[in-house]
Amino acid sequence: MSSVVQKSTAAESPLVLLCRKWNNFPSSVAQSRCLPVFFGEHHIGYVRPEHAKVMSENYPKAFREEPDSTRGSTTFSVLSEESLATALERMRTETEIQAVKGWRNELYAIRSQFHLPTLLLIERSAACLFGMRQYGTTLIGIVHHPQKGKCVWLQRRAKDKPTWPGQWDVTVSGGLSAFLDIRQRMIQEAEEEAGIPEVLLKDMKAAGIVSFFHDCPRGMYPSTEFMFEVELPSSFTPKNMDGEVDEFRLVSLQELYEAILDPSFKITACPMAVDCLIRHGYLDIETEPQLIEILESIHVPLDSFYRMKP
Amino acid sequence: MSSVVQKSTAAESPLVLLCRKWNNFPSSVAQSRCLPVFFGEHHIGYVRPEHAKVMSENYPKAFREEPDSTRGSTTFSVLSEESLATALERMRTETEIQAVKGWRNELYAIRSQFHLPTLLLIERSAACLFGMRQYGTTLIGIVHHPQKGKCVWLQRRAKDKPTWPGQWDVTVSGGLSAFLDIRQRMIQEAEEEAGIPEVLLKDMKAAGIVSFFHDCPRGMYPSTEFMFEVELPSSFTPKNMDGEVDEFRLVSLQELYEAILDPSFKITACPMAVDCLIRHGYLDIETEPQLIEILESIHVPLDSFYRMKP
Repeated sequence: MSSVVQKSTAAESPLVLLCRKWNNFPSSVAQSRCLPVFFGEHHIGYVRPEHAKVMSENYPKAFREEPDSTRGSTTFSVLSEESLATALERMRTETEIQAVKGWRNELYAIRSQFHLPTLLLIERSAACLFGMRQYGTTLIGIVHHPQKGKCVWLQRRAKDKPTWPGQWDVTVSGGLSAFLDIRQRMIQEAEEEAGIPEVLLKDMKAAGIVSFFHDCPRGMYPSTEFMFEVELPSSFTPKNMDGEVDEFRLVSLQELYEAILDPSFKITACPMAVDCLIRHGYLDIETEPQLIEILESIHVPLDSFYRMKP
Repeated sequence: MSSVVQKSTAAESPLVLLCRKWNNFPSSVAQSRCLPVFFGEHHIGYVRPEHAKVMSENYPKAFREEPDSTRGSTTFSVLSEESLATALERMRTETEIQAVKGWRNELYAIRSQFHLPTLLLIERSAACLFGMRQYGTTLIGIVHHPQKGKCVWLQRRAKDKPTWPGQWDVTVSGGLSAFLDIRQRMIQEAEEEAGIPEVLLKDMKAAGIVSFFHDCPRGMYPSTEFMFEVELPSSFTPKNMDGEVDEFRLVSLQELYEAILDPSFKITACPMAVDCLIRHGYLDIETEPQLIEILESIHVPLDSFYRMKP
């Protein structure tokens, strides 16, 4: 493949500039700078070289850095689930690595691909240190408003949330730490976050998958989001039940487009909003001539990135 | 990036096996075997080594093969639009290369990315010899059938069409040889191929983009398809106007799924059908656990493949 150099031109749209922020790993130097992380033959992530060095030197029972002659590069291996857990516990007090400071006491199941068996369990907060794949579910609540036309409910995240406090977000989103019964998980999250009763979700439909790779100071997030969509009656107003949302706001597709361009919108929720704008025909190639690049930034081929060693 | 080795397991779904047929270039050995094609600094395609050799040896005014020290490989350059046109004309009689035998007298505009200026014009039939990007428009005609529920119109291509004769295809598709006014081009194609009057297309909506890379004996097809969708009244039946379609058939989403698994369905129309099945919630991660791979196969990042030299 040709190298992925993106040259800016004066004509680039605000949305193209934004999409390079939510999907800033594959197109940046980060990818070539990071070490691939393996668990046995399975490529499960990426790690920054400075973290790789600290970990392989101080926790040799858990991690090993070694040259890979077939690639002409260095790889980083996680040696076992048990040694990983022990090392991470020690790293909380012995290192300054940010990811292990935000400990959540929640185990994430790591697999190279979604349909393959779980390879190992890892404390959720540490997954981003190793650039391990994360999965989530997102619901877009649609209302056919008598005056404004097709509208979408947005939520503003509570000011005390550990991540992205006070930022605007799509209707409902939740992480998938266990992978069973995705639809049921979405229904449960919609009830907790937005007070949407199950009866209003009976026509909820699957609406595809959004994948992107976000790199930020906290860590690396290769994310895959299972999208759902439901039409809600205009008489219904979402109401938060679990304290995680401060307010809801109904916006037209035009207002949604404007909202995501504002820095108050959670950058890693923009891909799901863009998917919705494309699905409903608001964004098309005639109004947005760089739509191909934008669409690629919400369909990053993570399954192809994470494959077994040849 | 990790290498893209796909290992089969007994559990793979028929749709996953099919998606590796319509998108068989990036995942095959073809990619590493082919030479990247440049026009100046622009990466515009791929060429098979045996064709590269014949062309650079016999038409040195048009083509040059040379080692690329930064890549440790060989690249192939198209030297000018004029010398290319002259060489292709001569190749029709002087070589056995299949692509130039199917001459169409239609010029394709080649650009590295859709929104960038045209780099050169090339006879349409030869574009696949150089793996140059092709664009098209597709319309999915939806009917809410009183008994069968949500349905889609399919067409069977005429038996005398030069490509894929007699195969089943989505409602309407057309190549974009010029790039102006895509929506108008789609309306025109819908009238010619399926007799859909413009008045029935007033609510036609853009429905995203499908990209895939198909490799076959005729050549290499990195294709990007602009998707449109329209709801048609159940009283309307498509009627071909230009002799390119033999019959139309209305199928439910379930029947559409079954149709694409049948070899009588045009393999390069399957991605557009799958996009429709995902958009309408027929395919989801619970019924199709390998949906991520399938979705990646209809959103191949061609914009990332074709970039300028660093």
